[in-house]
Amino acid sequence: MEFVKIKNVKIDDDFWNRYEALARGSIIPYQWKALNDEIEDADKSGAIQNFKIAAKVCEGEFHGFVFQDSDLSKWLEAASYSLATHEDKELEKRCDEAIDLIAKAQREDGYIDTYFLIKEKGKEFTNFCDWHELYCAGHMIEAAVAYAEATGKTKLLDVVCRFTDLIDKTIGPEEGKLHAYPGHPEFELALIKLYEATGEERYLRLCEYVINERGKEPNFFQQELEKRGNITGWGAKIDKVDLCYCQAHKPVRKQAEATGHAVRAGYLYTGMAGLAAKTQDESLVSACKALWNNVTRKQMYITGGIGSQGHGEAFSFNYHMPNDTVYNETCAAISLAFFAKKMLELNVDSEYSDVLERVIYNGSISGMSIDGTEFFYVNPLEVWQEATQKAAVTGHVASRRRKWFGCACCPPNLARMITSLGTYIYSSDSSTVYAHLFIGSEAALNIGNQKVTISQKSSLPWGDGASFALSEGRYTFAVRIPSWSKGYTLSINGSVVPAEVKRGYAYITRDWKDGDTVSLAFNIDVDIVVANPHVRADAGKGAIVRGPIVYCLESIDNTELICSIRLKNKEDSNFTVIYEPETLCGVNVIEGDALIRRDCGEDTLYKTAKDEYEPIRIRAVPYALWGNRNPSEEMAVWLNY
Amino acid sequence: MEFVKIKNVKIDDDFWNRYEALARGSIIPYQWKALNDEIEDADKSGAIQNFKIAAKVCEGEFHGFVFQDSDLSKWLEAASYSLATHEDKELEKRCDEAIDLIAKAQREDGYIDTYFLIKEKGKEFTNFCDWHELYCAGHMIEAAVAYAEATGKTKLLDVVCRFTDLIDKTIGPEEGKLHAYPGHPEFELALIKLYEATGEERYLRLCEYVINERGKEPNFFQQELEKRGNITGWGAKIDKVDLCYCQAHKPVRKQAEATGHAVRAGYLYTGMAGLAAKTQDESLVSACKALWNNVTRKQMYITGGIGSQGHGEAFSFNYHMPNDTVYNETCAAISLAFFAKKMLELNVDSEYSDVLERVIYNGSISGMSIDGTEFFYVNPLEVWQEATQKAAVTGHVASRRRKWFGCACCPPNLARMITSLGTYIYSSDSSTVYAHLFIGSEAALNIGNQKVTISQKSSLPWGDGASFALSEGRYTFAVRIPSWSKGYTLSINGSVVPAEVKRGYAYITRDWKDGDTVSLAFNIDVDIVVANPHVRADAGKGAIVRGPIVYCLESIDNTELICSIRLKNKEDSNFTVIYEPETLCGVNVIEGDALIRRDCGEDTLYKTAKDEYEPIRIRAVPYALWGNRNPSEEMAVWLNY
Repeated sequence: MEFVKIKNVKIDDDFWNRYEALARGSIIPYQWKALNDEIEDADKSGAIQNFKIAAKVCEGEFHGFVFQDSDLSKWLEAASYSLATHEDKELEKRCDEAIDLIAKAQREDGYIDTYFLIKEKGKEFTNFCDWHELYCAGHMIEAAVAYAEATGKTKLLDVVCRFTDLIDKTIGPEEGKLHAYPGHPEFELALIKLYEATGEERYLRLCEYVINERGKEPNFFQQELEKRGNITGWGAKIDKVDLCYCQAHKPVRKQAEATGHAVRAGYLYTGMAGLAAKTQDESLVSACKALWNNVTRKQMYITGGIGSQGHGEAFSFNYHMPNDTVYNETCAAISLAFFAKKMLELNVDSEYSDVLERVIYNGSISGMSIDGTEFFYVNPLEVWQEATQKAAVTGHVASRRRKWFGCACCPPNLARMITSLGTYIYSSDSSTVYAHLFIGSEAALNIGNQKVTISQKSSLPWGDGASFALSEGRYTFAVRIPSWSKGYTLSINGSVVPAEVKRGYAYITRDWKDGDTVSLAFNIDVDIVVANPHVRADAGKGAIVRGPIVYCLESIDNTELICSIRLKNKEDSNFTVIYEPETLCGVNVIEGDALIRRDCGEDTLYKTAKDEYEPIRIRAVPYALWGNRNPSEEMAVWLNY
Repeated sequence: MEFVKIKNVKIDDDFWNRYEALARGSIIPYQWKALNDEIEDADKSGAIQNFKIAAKVCEGEFHGFVFQDSDLSKWLEAASYSLATHEDKELEKRCDEAIDLIAKAQREDGYIDTYFLIKEKGKEFTNFCDWHELYCAGHMIEAAVAYAEATGKTKLLDVVCRFTDLIDKTIGPEEGKLHAYPGHPEFELALIKLYEATGEERYLRLCEYVINERGKEPNFFQQELEKRGNITGWGAKIDKVDLCYCQAHKPVRKQAEATGHAVRAGYLYTGMAGLAAKTQDESLVSACKALWNNVTRKQMYITGGIGSQGHGEAFSFNYHMPNDTVYNETCAAISLAFFAKKMLELNVDSEYSDVLERVIYNGSISGMSIDGTEFFYVNPLEVWQEATQKAAVTGHVASRRRKWFGCACCPPNLARMITSLGTYIYSSDSSTVYAHLFIGSEAALNIGNQKVTISQKSSLPWGDGASFALSEGRYTFAVRIPSWSKGYTLSINGSVVPAEVKRGYAYITRDWKDGDTVSLAFNIDVDIVVANPHVRADAGKGAIVRGPIVYCLESIDNTELICSIRLKNKEDSNFTVIYEPETLCGVNVIEGDALIRRDCGEDTLYKTAKDEYEPIRIRAVPYALWGNRNPSEEMAVWLNY
């Protein structure tokens, strides 16, 4: 099974057009300036400058993190996706120039990582655990594959193949090679793409090696630490590597519970699932399923966010999902979308595409402002502004997005997710085309030898359905029935038809005539959702959702004291859904009847409980768009209920 | 107005006898062993050893914190209170030996602090901000005053007077003296005691100086830092002192919001109120009231705990009282009891004694185990055991008490609070005796020139009232009507009498005959209490209380998922109060009807809300005694409601 190629799908969707336009018209140009240090009031990037220094085009010192190179790669990848569907000579020229610079910076032996070319010369391949060489290599590979696919130009692909070949000479099972693997996964998923782009088996084998080697005893990271005299990459002296942090505490097939740094975890699992899809290795498939189940059934926020603690930007443990002290890095949500896509490749099941949809409409795009120029690193589900300023436990949480980050992993990651969203909509195998997402678009796919086009019109997420105009042929059209739907009507050319539903997809096989249109109308009522009672943070609370959209309350629309609001049962809430074109660039707001506790004056801290609620009409907006107006004192997804 | 002297009150109370006996029979002997490093499996103290080294009785290196001396002083103080009411030749001998050792360690010029006598010779009086010289001096003064009061022996009093005189020569307004004050307050409140014990005005003046000088510009701590080349007491290089942390950010009269390290704050405010009671300085009285109001109306947990964050063991800000990530150091609660006592001295108002009662029955004694050998430093109101082990935000919270701490401030602090509790029960002025606490006891006081005895019998906290047998004379008897009482009956010799109630005290003036008995019976129903809606952490929740006792639910009595329990209205809860002599050394447990959310299986993380509560009979135990049985997975004071 494979997903539709980036060049073969063009999004035209009321919801996503704005995001795509922002990515092309605002985020990509803005981030280019950021990478070139041309934005005032923003943290310096140094990413382009580092390559210039490494290429000896200019002089200076390395700036930024050990993974600074990856910002340029992620930008190139996003730009490539944009170029694949939207010609832009100016942008292509910029990319070509950047690629020329990268090629010029590459060392003769193929090595390319400016941190080591400039700052830590001679220390290449001495600290896979803490330093991000393979992570940066992975991002450059992804950029190279994307650019080649978009433009047909292979200069960067040649660069990364040479680098990967050098890595392949350095790492492996053979005597004299390092039994290494990345401290920050990413290389694995990139190698799958490189294998797909080049057909070179050795890249698949290298991927298999680093995945299989991970977490074996004696532990490579621990040995490597001891070889360095127990000194970490940041100069500290330690006895033991925190192996859980980087998912190297056990061989991957024995990892059943997601742990450690959430982005690392998401990228690793994506690589594992990608490899499993190529090799059909049953033990690896099982490990992927176990990890998927753990992440999405025990450690995933309702927004699709993952990584519940700031310390280590990490998973904590099952059902521990505080809403205020959470981390939920934007990149981590994106990594879950990657993982979901690869799980779908293993097995078409709406369990995966439901999560994919949850992530893309909520916990990922919450990371950027409505104009695409400001970003959240951390995505809390409950904010008390004063606490973000004054309390240490929420000190890592911001109530306003920022222009750019010194550690700028999230903004370009969002840009590449948005510009490649077309590739998530459909996949196909020899007999069937699968529609995973309801995003208006024109797509062309292969079903075995047949070429098929699909023109999708979607009124989601604000409306209630989508229709698919298909091209002729005998094939199966399979479309997801989302878990949020409380009922649906499936019709062909206006006539209701029955459909066989398997694992959350409705399957229709027939001889299609050009223009045959499959329509789906969902029951997309406002819903109050509760969490598993083991999620202590959500106990006694409910969240307002409608279709794929998770809602929140902000003080600006309600009251300073969001926390003192109490939802009623849905039946008593008189929810109304109003499309407001002027609000937050056009969204459905939800209004409803709720209760609020009366204030008791500032002199009373504790008092005997009495019936003290009064009615309030609440107004909820999509969570992804919170914090885009004047700062609210409070925001909350989960409300007392 | 003054409180009853320690020698003149003897507690005989069903609730407190056990605590007093533990203090005398267990805590004081146990802590003596701890101070002498004779307890296996406990962190080393080194406190006695340090004095031996300083006294040149043995050789070795200083062990412990810069404030290690204070542990011995606090122990001596507690032992003194015990000796004042319970003769114990063995204990007195130990104290005398310890005092001989201290005297021997004192330098010829009067200086006594083993950290500086052993480890940092020549650095005396160079870092008032970070080092605890004046804090340790304060504790030694308190010990000396207590020991003199208990035994009439003044050897330690002489030691501390010599030391204080040296400090008085070093600190002051005069040219050439340091304009210093303590980084960790304590010295201030001790100087009041030293003034009371010796009648020496210079100690009151020194107290006034360090209080008035605090927080003035240019800031002494900042100047001191710069003089040391910006190096802190722990060797870090910093630009600015965190002045809020040590309450030196403003002159004390401008401090209206409690800030910084909670114990420091509590001790400072106690010193301020103690000074105000001596000087009647109106501006200082106002500052004390403002700080009292802020602490008790905006930053105090229902248990009397203060200090809502682990970072800095500190106050965070108004209404920010998370129940799980809280600090609530045992010492901080105790400091609030001290503050309350001094506020009562300024003005008899049940606002102060209600808080005093709240602290002593709940958030202070929660710091020790039922056998007096294990201690909590941190007193959370909500615990999820797994989170204390696996989540960084609650990493400072323990679900089991520990034997001793390297930083052992809390255990001896508890010991001295418990052994001196008699002094909190009554105070008197020229015409009136005030009964602040309902604790069975025999007391003798002066009302002007009259000598009065009061024999109190109390059935609280498990029963519903108390009676006071008075000795003859014409005077006013004033007794607190607690804020938790929903009604009361006041009678004299069995006949109900009216009483004038002012600021929470019922006043009765008459010619008392020997044995006249004033009885109070309270309406002491189980109550559900709610917090001010600005306390976000308690929104939608209620706490079960009865009289002065705050209750909690532990998993061991209920279910693992305490968080998924929902209280009903009091009227529907069918609360029953059962005195169980075998439970937790004899307590009232409260049982009631509540609801609990059905589990939804481990595969469901989020689902549409439906009516899914089922009935459960809950069982609540006093918060102060939580964690004394097999570890519970959860404990909570605040329950969904």
